[in-house]
Amino acid sequence: MTGCVFCKIIGGQIPATKVYEDEASLAFMDINPISRGHTLLVPKEHFVRVSEVDAEKYQALVKIVPRLTKAVLEATGAAGLNVLQNNGRAAGQVVEHLHIHLIPRYQGDGLGFIWKPKPASAEALTELALKIKSTLAK
Amino acid sequence: MTGCVFCKIIGGQIPATKVYEDEASLAFMDINPISRGHTLLVPKEHFVRVSEVDAEKYQALVKIVPRLTKAVLEATGAAGLNVLQNNGRAAGQVVEHLHIHLIPRYQGDGLGFIWKPKPASAEALTELALKIKSTLAK
Repeated sequence: MTGCVFCKIIGGQIPATKVYEDEASLAFMDINPISRGHTLLVPKEHFVRVSEVDAEKYQALVKIVPRLTKAVLEATGAAGLNVLQNNGRAAGQVVEHLHIHLIPRYQGDGLGFIWKPKPASAEALTELALKIKSTLAK
Repeated sequence: MTGCVFCKIIGGQIPATKVYEDEASLAFMDINPISRGHTLLVPKEHFVRVSEVDAEKYQALVKIVPRLTKAVLEATGAAGLNVLQNNGRAAGQVVEHLHIHLIPRYQGDGLGFIWKPKPASAEALTELALKIKSTLAK
């Protein structure tokens, strides 16, 4: 897509430090890493949100995630790793081309998802679940 | 796996508010949601980290992610959604059964991943990329 930085990386107009490539996907080092080894995995086809992608194309994109996670963990010696995919500005998505972050985690790195759990009532959960199920069934 | 809370949910020994189920996976509402509509997707087979799973089983687990994301967004009216999967205590993993969080996001919810990017040198990125590529090639 014209003007999309990840499409330009895929097309070779912008350089990137690549770690993996197949027909459907490309993985490269984030140039502004939030931790050592921060890696991005993107589909070669331009999508914005995961909700736009059909199951087969999503499976083709993510099939490398387990092996890539293992490789990033081994290469960095990290203690853990977050696989994160943000959909929409409200969720922190900046580049409007679907991308999966592999974020190696180190003890005391001060990173992580802000976690403020609030117990929900069974009624509230059931009501939401019914809505989700009926939307899935469409 | 004995003692695993998600295995007990899968086995029916602990109740859950389910939204989706197939041969490989189960999705249900998080009982301690960090946002309205927080949903979990788990494989029926017990794994701890994504790096343990082979590509086919991972694909079977995640094939519903695009549709489920769409359904959660529609059902909640959320402005965005994070797909998050934590590997290891250092990455915030609490339950030691692989799980994918679908976290609907709302304007001004105060959530999100803590983002402290630091520009990396081309040399550092190339060195890491070489290590990751050689580990992937094993």
